Amino acid sequence: MMMRAMRVITFLSDFGVEDDFAGTCHGVIKRILPEAEVIHITHGIEPQSILQGALVLANTLPYMPEGIHLAVVDPEVGASRRAVALGTADGNRILVGPDNGLLIPAAQALGGILWAVEISNPRYALEPVSATFHGRDVFAPAAAHLSNGVEPAELGEAVEPESLVQLEWPQPEIGTRRIRATCLYVDRFGNVRLNLTAPEVEGLGIVQGSRVEVELETDRFYAVAARTFADARAGDIILYEDAYRNIALAISRGNAAETFGVRAGLEVRLRADPG
Amino acid sequence: MMMRAMRVITFLSDFGVEDDFAGTCHGVIKRILPEAEVIHITHGIEPQSILQGALVLANTLPYMPEGIHLAVVDPEVGASRRAVALGTADGNRILVGPDNGLLIPAAQALGGILWAVEISNPRYALEPVSATFHGRDVFAPAAAHLSNGVEPAELGEAVEPESLVQLEWPQPEIGTRRIRATCLYVDRFGNVRLNLTAPEVEGLGIVQGSRVEVELETDRFYAVAARTFADARAGDIILYEDAYRNIALAISRGNAAETFGVRAGLEVRLRADPG
Amino acid sequence: MMMRAMRVITFLSDFGVEDDFAGTCHGVIKRILPEAEVIHITHGIEPQSILQGALVLANTLPYMPEGIHLAVVDPEVGASRRAVALGTADGNRILVGPDNGLLIPAAQALGGILWAVEISNPRYALEPVSATFHGRDVFAPAAAHLSNGVEPAELGEAVEPESLVQLEWPQPEIGTRRIRATCLYVDRFGNVRLNLTAPEVEGLGIVQGSRVEVELETDRFYAVAARTFADARAGDIILYEDAYRNIALAISRGNAAETFGVRAGLEVRLRADPG
Repeated sequence: MMMRAMRVITFLSDFGVEDDFAGTCHGVIKRILPEAEVIHITHGIEPQSILQGALVLANTLPYMPEGIHLAVVDPEVGASRRAVALGTADGNRILVGPDNGLLIPAAQALGGILWAVEISNPRYALEPVSATFHGRDVFAPAAAHLSNGVEPAELGEAVEPESLVQLEWPQPEIGTRRIRATCLYVDRFGNVRLNLTAPEVEGLGIVQGSRVEVELETDRFYAVAARTFADARAGDIILYEDAYRNIALAISRGNAAETFGVRAGLEVRLRADPG
Repeated sequence: MMMRAMRVITFLSDFGVEDDFAGTCHGVIKRILPEAEVIHITHGIEPQSILQGALVLANTLPYMPEGIHLAVVDPEVGASRRAVALGTADGNRILVGPDNGLLIPAAQALGGILWAVEISNPRYALEPVSATFHGRDVFAPAAAHLSNGVEPAELGEAVEPESLVQLEWPQPEIGTRRIRATCLYVDRFGNVRLNLTAPEVEGLGIVQGSRVEVELETDRFYAVAARTFADARAGDIILYEDAYRNIALAISRGNAAETFGVRAGLEVRLRADPG
Repeated sequence: MMMRAMRVITFLSDFGVEDDFAGTCHGVIKRILPEAEVIHITHGIEPQSILQGALVLANTLPYMPEGIHLAVVDPEVGASRRAVALGTADGNRILVGPDNGLLIPAAQALGGILWAVEISNPRYALEPVSATFHGRDVFAPAAAHLSNGVEPAELGEAVEPESLVQLEWPQPEIGTRRIRATCLYVDRFGNVRLNLTAPEVEGLGIVQGSRVEVELETDRFYAVAARTFADARAGDIILYEDAYRNIALAISRGNAAETFGVRAGLEVRLRADPG
C-alpha cells in the first residue's frame, strides 16, 4: 500500500452548519496539511442518521475527485465502536470514519473494500482525545495525515473487511400488485426519497404516465409516474426516478413531505392503479 | 472570443446546504478542473424563486472576482428550457445557468450581454444527463470546462441575447403620497427587502427621521426612516437603504418579517406621514 | 510589527448561510487577495449574539491554522463602535472585527493582546462604506489586506488594549450544594452548553455516575454525570464535559434543548443529589 499524497479531502457529516463542528474539523485538517483542499459534500445529514449518511455518501462519492473521503455520523462516539480507514478496490480512494456501517455502501459503490485499518495510533490524533468530538480529534487528523501520504498501516492494526459493522438497510416488500417501501430521507425540496429503484417499480407495470395509488400512515392519494417535475402541472403529485436512481415522490412546484407529513422512516405503500 | 483560463467559479443556487446538491456540483467541478476555486455565494435562495436568485446574483457579482459565475434556480429542469452561457460586456466574466431570466439582471449589472450560447454539446456534460439534476450534469461541468478555457462556441449554438427569457420583475406603484411595493425576499435577520430604491422613496418627501405609515395585509404601523439599525432604539421599526441600495424594513435588534408575518411576494404599502 | 503574508483567513459570523452575506465577504477577500484561503468556522451564531460568537471563537481558534481571524457579530454596525485588528502575543495571528467584546476571549485564549489598531483608513475599505454591511465593506477588506502583508499601522491609529470593549460574561453562582448557571447556547444536537467548567461542578462532589438534580424555569428532573453520550442509555439525561471543556446537558440520542425548552440565556440550577 504505497501511498501518494492526495490533496482532496471530501467531508460529509451530520454536524450541521449552525455550529462550528464542521469548520473546526476543516481547520484541524489545514493545520496538519496546508495543501489539503476540503470539499464539503454536506453537513446536513439528519442528526445521528447513519442510514441517510450512508446513502448520501454512496450516491455522491462517485462524483467526487479521488482522494480521502471523511464521513462522520457517529452516535456511539466515545464508546467502543472502532474508528476505521478503508481502501477501495481502485486504489485511489480512502474512506475515513466510524465503524458503524456509514462507509460500507459507498465503498461498495466504488468497487469494494481492498483493505481496512483501525485508527488507533495516538501519534495521528489530537491528544487528549475528547469523549464527544472524534471528528476533530481522531477522524479529521487521520484524514489529513492520509492525505499527506502517511501509510494506512501507520494508523493502526489491519481489520478484516468482513468484521466491519454492516448497516441494516430497510428492504422494500415487493408484491405483484403492491410495494411496501420506506422513506429514506426528505430533501430540501420536500421530495420523498424511497428505498426503491426503477426496475422494482416497473415490475408492477408502472411506466411513465401510469397512475399510482400511494398510501401513507393516514393519507391516500394518486400520483402519476413522470420523468421530471416539469412534465407535470404545478401541484401534481409525481413518482419519479431521482438523479441518483432512487425512486422518489414529489409535488411539482410544491413540497410533498410537508403536504403529506412524511419523514424519514415512514412506510409508503404503492399500488399500480387498475385503471 | 479567445478564452483564457479563469480559476474562480462562483456558485449560487436554491440547493440549500441540508442536502448534497451544492457539494456534489463542487465535486464535479473539481474532478474536471482540479485548479478551480469555488466560492459559494449562497445556496439559500428560496426553493424555485428565480426572482430572489436573480436579485441576489445581480447584487453580489460585482463584489466577486472575475471568472465563471454558475447559478442554478431551475424549476423547469428536464423540460425544454435552454441551458445557456452568457459573456458580459467587459469580457472577463461568463454566467452559466438556465435560460429562465435568472442570469439577466446580473449580466446587465455587469455591463450587458456580449454573447450567448446554448449549452448542448454532450461532450461537456455528464452522460447520461439526469432529468432532475442539471446542476450536476450540465451546468457544473460547463462551468468547469469554461473555467478551463474551453471556447464557449464549443458548448453549443450561439443564441441571440434578445431571445433570452426575461424575468417579470414586480414593479412598484409610485404615487405622490403612497407607494405600493412588494417584498422581494426576507433575509436571515428578518429584514424585509422591497422592490424600491432610495430616490423612489425620497420622492414622497421621506427623509431621514421621517415617520412613514406602513400597511400590510392585516397590519398597519409607523416606521421611521433611518440610516442604520443602530440609529434607532431596540424595538423601533425602521425603513432604510440596505447595503445593495434597495429599501428595506427592519426592527432594530429584532425580526421584522417574523413580527409582522411578511414573506416574499407580499404587498407593502408606504405612506409619508402628514405629520 | 513586520508582517509576513499569511494565506489563511478564518471567518466566523452570525450571517447564516441562507443569504449571501458570508459568500459576498468571501468574494471580496478573493478579489483583493486571490491567494487567500478562507476557512468558514461557522456563520450560524445566533443573530446578534456577541456572547455566543465570542465563546465559539475562543473555543475554535486554537484549532485553526495561524493567520487572520475575521469575526463579525455586529449589532451596532454603522454606529460609533470601532472596527479593530488585534495582534496576539505569539505574533502569528491577527483578529479582525468590531470592538464590542467579540474578539477578546479568543485573543486571551491565544496568549493575550500584543497590540491593537483601529481600522479606519479608507484606502483599505470598499468605498463608499455602507451603513449596514461592514463585514463586506470594512472587515473583509481589512482581513484580506492584512493577509497580504499590509502593516497593521497602515489601517489606522494604535488602540490601547485596555480601552477595548469588554464583554459581560454571565458568571455562575457556585455554592456548596447548588450551582446557578446560565445556558450560553444550544448546539444542533440540542445539547445545552453552560457557563461552567468541570472543576466547578466537581466542587459539589459531582463525579461520574453521580445523580444531579436539574431545575429549569418550569421543570425539574435528574441527570447523571457521564463522560459521553454512549455511556448512557438512549433517552437518559446526562451532564458531561463537552469537547471544549465546558459543562453541558444532553439527552443520549435525543434533543435536550427541545425536550426541556431551553434556549440561550436561560438559568439552569444544579444540585448534587443527597442520594
